[in-house]
Amino acid sequence: MNDLKQYIENNKDRFLEELFSLIRIPSISSKSENKPDMQRCAERWAELIKEAGADMVEIHQTEGAPIVYGEKMVDPKAPTVLVYGHYDVMPVEPLDLWKTPPFEPTIIDGKIFARGADDDKGQSFIHAKAFEYMVKTNQLPCNVKFMIEGEEEIGSSNLYIFCENNKQKLQADVILVSDTSMIAADVPSINIGLRGLTYLEIKVVGPCRDLHSGVFGGSVANPINVLCKMLTDMVDENGKVTVPGFYDDVLEISREERDLMAQAPFDEQEYKDMIGIKEVYGEKGYSTLERSTIRPSFDICGIWGGYIGEGSKTVLPSEAHAKVSMRIVPNQDHHKIMELFKKHFEAMAPDYVTVTVTPHHGGPAYVSPIDLPAYKAAEKAISVTYGKQTLPSRSGGSIPIIAGFESILGIKSILLGFGLEEDGIHSPNECFPLEQLFKGIETVPHFYKYFAEMNQK
Amino acid sequence: MNDLKQYIENNKDRFLEELFSLIRIPSISSKSENKPDMQRCAERWAELIKEAGADMVEIHQTEGAPIVYGEKMVDPKAPTVLVYGHYDVMPVEPLDLWKTPPFEPTIIDGKIFARGADDDKGQSFIHAKAFEYMVKTNQLPCNVKFMIEGEEEIGSSNLYIFCENNKQKLQADVILVSDTSMIAADVPSINIGLRGLTYLEIKVVGPCRDLHSGVFGGSVANPINVLCKMLTDMVDENGKVTVPGFYDDVLEISREERDLMAQAPFDEQEYKDMIGIKEVYGEKGYSTLERSTIRPSFDICGIWGGYIGEGSKTVLPSEAHAKVSMRIVPNQDHHKIMELFKKHFEAMAPDYVTVTVTPHHGGPAYVSPIDLPAYKAAEKAISVTYGKQTLPSRSGGSIPIIAGFESILGIKSILLGFGLEEDGIHSPNECFPLEQLFKGIETVPHFYKYFAEMNQK
Repeated sequence: MNDLKQYIENNKDRFLEELFSLIRIPSISSKSENKPDMQRCAERWAELIKEAGADMVEIHQTEGAPIVYGEKMVDPKAPTVLVYGHYDVMPVEPLDLWKTPPFEPTIIDGKIFARGADDDKGQSFIHAKAFEYMVKTNQLPCNVKFMIEGEEEIGSSNLYIFCENNKQKLQADVILVSDTSMIAADVPSINIGLRGLTYLEIKVVGPCRDLHSGVFGGSVANPINVLCKMLTDMVDENGKVTVPGFYDDVLEISREERDLMAQAPFDEQEYKDMIGIKEVYGEKGYSTLERSTIRPSFDICGIWGGYIGEGSKTVLPSEAHAKVSMRIVPNQDHHKIMELFKKHFEAMAPDYVTVTVTPHHGGPAYVSPIDLPAYKAAEKAISVTYGKQTLPSRSGGSIPIIAGFESILGIKSILLGFGLEEDGIHSPNECFPLEQLFKGIETVPHFYKYFAEMNQK
Repeated sequence: MNDLKQYIENNKDRFLEELFSLIRIPSISSKSENKPDMQRCAERWAELIKEAGADMVEIHQTEGAPIVYGEKMVDPKAPTVLVYGHYDVMPVEPLDLWKTPPFEPTIIDGKIFARGADDDKGQSFIHAKAFEYMVKTNQLPCNVKFMIEGEEEIGSSNLYIFCENNKQKLQADVILVSDTSMIAADVPSINIGLRGLTYLEIKVVGPCRDLHSGVFGGSVANPINVLCKMLTDMVDENGKVTVPGFYDDVLEISREERDLMAQAPFDEQEYKDMIGIKEVYGEKGYSTLERSTIRPSFDICGIWGGYIGEGSKTVLPSEAHAKVSMRIVPNQDHHKIMELFKKHFEAMAPDYVTVTVTPHHGGPAYVSPIDLPAYKAAEKAISVTYGKQTLPSRSGGSIPIIAGFESILGIKSILLGFGLEEDGIHSPNECFPLEQLFKGIETVPHFYKYFAEMNQK
């Protein structure tokens, strides 16, 4: 692999053009208006995998966004790596906070700015190009399968069905996923834990029409006031979620493991400066790192009701709405949490309003063992590229389908992420450093090599 | 005035066409995009007053919307009535709840449906047509002045200046205002009390950018969660506002007056059915009618933050916002309440967010004495038209400038409203019954007659 760095250097411009062609397609999975973009994005992915050297590429239609599948089988006896990624992206609102157009990738200070630059177009593209290098230079030591979906940001419901129906096709020794972050560009790490998710929407209805807040204010419960109070009551003064039974199944992490976590490099002042806050806030008795990784959370992701335009309007509105995300941790069941929340919240509703909780999507947490050969191969590959020791880390984010892969296909995943926390995924001005992109392309071929060697022993 | 009813009958179609020409102009004072419509609407009003018989009509430009002034002086020794109204309207959002286009007046079941049909284009138009009848039939016994403004819904700030600068021009014995409701179409009443208003906007800022709710959720205070809690803390479990000093100046109404109020026809079940609620809710120790008239209120008129589009987005947003209206009652000072609220709310803000309260507009409450000759004249006029006794009533709404008229011009106002609560002013599908419109036009000439007679004694 002596020519690997040179190969990347020689092809940089083409790589970027190809990645940008993916990014330019506004494949927002949660918006029905972007449905045609999902098909276009799947087709572009299929072309890229084909051109990179796959023997076979298929686009599977689903009830939602299409799934791209491709493979190159070098030897039935060789180990098989299944690469998973997603081509769908988050919505881009609030648009006025973007400094460059979200779907026109722009390079500033060595970073690509665009929705999907990191999550997950940039990161999954790494695998297409690493694979291309291995095929073009005749060095591919494993069978490689690609499975790129378009519904990760909305719960992957059709990918679960696809996995159930294609267990044979998807057989592999490990699933390789680049959809997480490293601790820092100079602190390479592999993610060994993800939180799960329960996402739902709340609707509070009071009077059957908007009322004049002067004529009725004081005599009729205002659905916004009620929603605020009900949401406030969901978290107590210690930062704990008040849904009965919420913590029953939470896996308590041992003192030893918590002490180990505390040794990871983490500067709270830097953290606060990075996101512009004066103080951190969270569940009492846990550190900042623990609060966002091994402990569940309760966040209102969106709220709206009444008059939200310019100036003033005196109205007592008919309805108020909120979207809520609860991150869950190992051993919590997202279906159970959803049910507990819905039951509790609807039962709390006072007589003078009607409250409805509508489940969106969810998924369980995931923990990856660090004694897997695939973990060792990934650790070694990163250390070669970055010239540093690779640490295990946990992330507070969720990729629900990862736990699904294990339960449906019986295959463990390695979360080989090249993102950085400051990439601002899901936010305006999402970005991805060129250096992480190219180091990623350099790392993955080493992984193939070490993984094949370990599996041949 | 034997021909009054016939005159109205003969001119109904023309009256409606003229009113509709006013309604079709989308004169929303709170939106800067509607600035040209304010000028157009003022010009249309000037034409209508001129055509109805005014000797002189002027349009006064202000820093905001123009003020229309017109007059007919019949005799320097005759009493003078100043008619006040406003041509600006509330915003129309949420648009999807309108059954007919908000600025295309549509008659259904004997009611005009449109923004402004009642508040206040329909109601103030009554005065133009009553005046027209008196002039055309040579029966006008008083001097009449018209003052129609375009900023009532946003606090009338330029009308205060206009009044200060035109005290001589605006001299009158009484101000006549139709911008309130009767108890019911078959329970005619005159409004003797209005609540005041303090309207403000709140901004809570947490992290400097939207964050991924998985990566940061649990470790960083979510501005929406914080806003909900802070707003919730503003009202206690007895429905009382918790701002220190908020109730200090509230005029407590005597047991006797409260007992009198309780005798007004009010069916709580009908009230609940009309607005589609199962239970009423408000300050402990007060009746529904009292809560919305003699007691202050705290309503969140709008709230927004995070992702409010279709589907789901897992985000821990940077900002959350709310608009709040507090109705105030006699003796509360709206400037003082604004200051108390701002100071208290901003001081409550926890370290991990920045909270800003921005004042919008406000105004004091108003009480009209029932022993004024003008009140007696209005009472008699209504009783003649409706064939029933006229009751005094109070409204929870606010017309801040009414108290301003008294303090600046030294003139009392008579709130001769022809609206009904079910007209849904400020709401989608605002309407105004044709019967109330025509009965209004029939009532006002009688008022002129009785008022002139009483003032000649």
